[in-house]
Amino acid sequence: MEIPTSHPRYKSLLLRHQLIDGFKAGLVIDSGLIAHGRGEAFDYLLGEKTCDFAKDAIAVTSAMLLTAKNPVFSVNGNSAAIAAKELIELTKVCNKLTLEVNLFYHSDERSKKIANHLKALGATNVVESSVSPAAILPGVESPRRKLNAEGMAKADLVLVAIEDGDRSEALVKAGYQVVSIDLNPMSRTAQATQVSIVDELTRLLATLIAQLQNDKEVSLDQLSRRISDYDNSKILNRAISAIRNGFTCEVKI
Amino acid sequence: MEIPTSHPRYKSLLLRHQLIDGFKAGLVIDSGLIAHGRGEAFDYLLGEKTCDFAKDAIAVTSAMLLTAKNPVFSVNGNSAAIAAKELIELTKVCNKLTLEVNLFYHSDERSKKIANHLKALGATNVVESSVSPAAILPGVESPRRKLNAEGMAKADLVLVAIEDGDRSEALVKAGYQVVSIDLNPMSRTAQATQVSIVDELTRLLATLIAQLQNDKEVSLDQLSRRISDYDNSKILNRAISAIRNGFTCEVKI
Repeated sequence: MEIPTSHPRYKSLLLRHQLIDGFKAGLVIDSGLIAHGRGEAFDYLLGEKTCDFAKDAIAVTSAMLLTAKNPVFSVNGNSAAIAAKELIELTKVCNKLTLEVNLFYHSDERSKKIANHLKALGATNVVESSVSPAAILPGVESPRRKLNAEGMAKADLVLVAIEDGDRSEALVKAGYQVVSIDLNPMSRTAQATQVSIVDELTRLLATLIAQLQNDKEVSLDQLSRRISDYDNSKILNRAISAIRNGFTCEVKI
Repeated sequence: MEIPTSHPRYKSLLLRHQLIDGFKAGLVIDSGLIAHGRGEAFDYLLGEKTCDFAKDAIAVTSAMLLTAKNPVFSVNGNSAAIAAKELIELTKVCNKLTLEVNLFYHSDERSKKIANHLKALGATNVVESSVSPAAILPGVESPRRKLNAEGMAKADLVLVAIEDGDRSEALVKAGYQVVSIDLNPMSRTAQATQVSIVDELTRLLATLIAQLQNDKEVSLDQLSRRISDYDNSKILNRAISAIRNGFTCEVKI
């Protein structure tokens, strides 16, 4: 189906089609489609734009990425299907960043397929949680508790996107600095993590990449101050207000 | 996967599994899963319960069903997958009600499959828009504009669930009385129709069935007064307020 570029929700419909393509290719599973729909509802309440509170959270994420030793982006089926290009671009701007495939509904086959999809598009630093694990994440059952030796096992900063609450809470509890990307500011994930970016994944990655490029000129002192000044509870409250306010006018879905 | 009945979101997870079963059986398509996820987000903001404004809309729907000559429930893949039993129960309590299969992404095969699914579960009055159409709905393209001779073509009242805005608007414009079932009170469907039930489909059908049973004792005068007293814009405003208020406390998803 052709989507006219003039459609007011063109980007959202395009993402949906990318996700369905990923589903047909075996990267995404059925419940990933349902999860995407939940995100769509919140995104349209946000006006499908990167709001100021997201920009603030992105700015601190940039500072954290630049000052971290071993940052890891935890990639699942949905994020690989809709944002592979942006994720690879991010590893080019921040080349110490590792992409680690970790799936809620794990299968070796799907994990491998996602890793290969990222590599085929040019990713060089991709690992899988289920391959060569060096440690396990306490409090998480299932194969997804595995932490790859070259990725999560030695990471000091983890970015999770569209993540389930149990794993996010376990990561924070295990001492990781965690940045979450979640369109629902009231989700357990957004509530648990030290930094919560309430924004759509592909959109915020573009903003994060631009921010990282600007921040390369910024002093370490300034980056550290940005991190210590950051207050995530204020960000979440602003996101909740924005969604509430999004519900006062008539929005067409 | 077994869902423990003690899970706080047991019903919601059960529905999701029913939908995925319907997807595997070919009743539901991929974009139906995404649409369901959007509904889930709104339902959890409503507290996953039938609110007072929905009860008021259900009460007027009951009166309209009892006073209509030829009511039709327009059934799509998602509603057949999650609510077949409740829909059939509804036709037993209101036996002039016809179920008409009409699909956004139409295929003869899927339409037939849905009709057969309903019949296998005991439905006797099932028709398909695409079979023996007697008229077309102006302003709608695609095979879904067809109106079955025994169903929509002679209907005076139409119930639509999880319907797209274009068709809902076209139905109202064509002179139908339309009751919509939609979890988003700001959707074009909810905004266009004469009665908007903002509630989850299976939950509200149980309430509607009970209401119809009670209303069989109610006089025609009283039912007519209930219809003339009804103000849908107030219902929508109450639904919007409820969702806004649902966003003040921390809800776990």
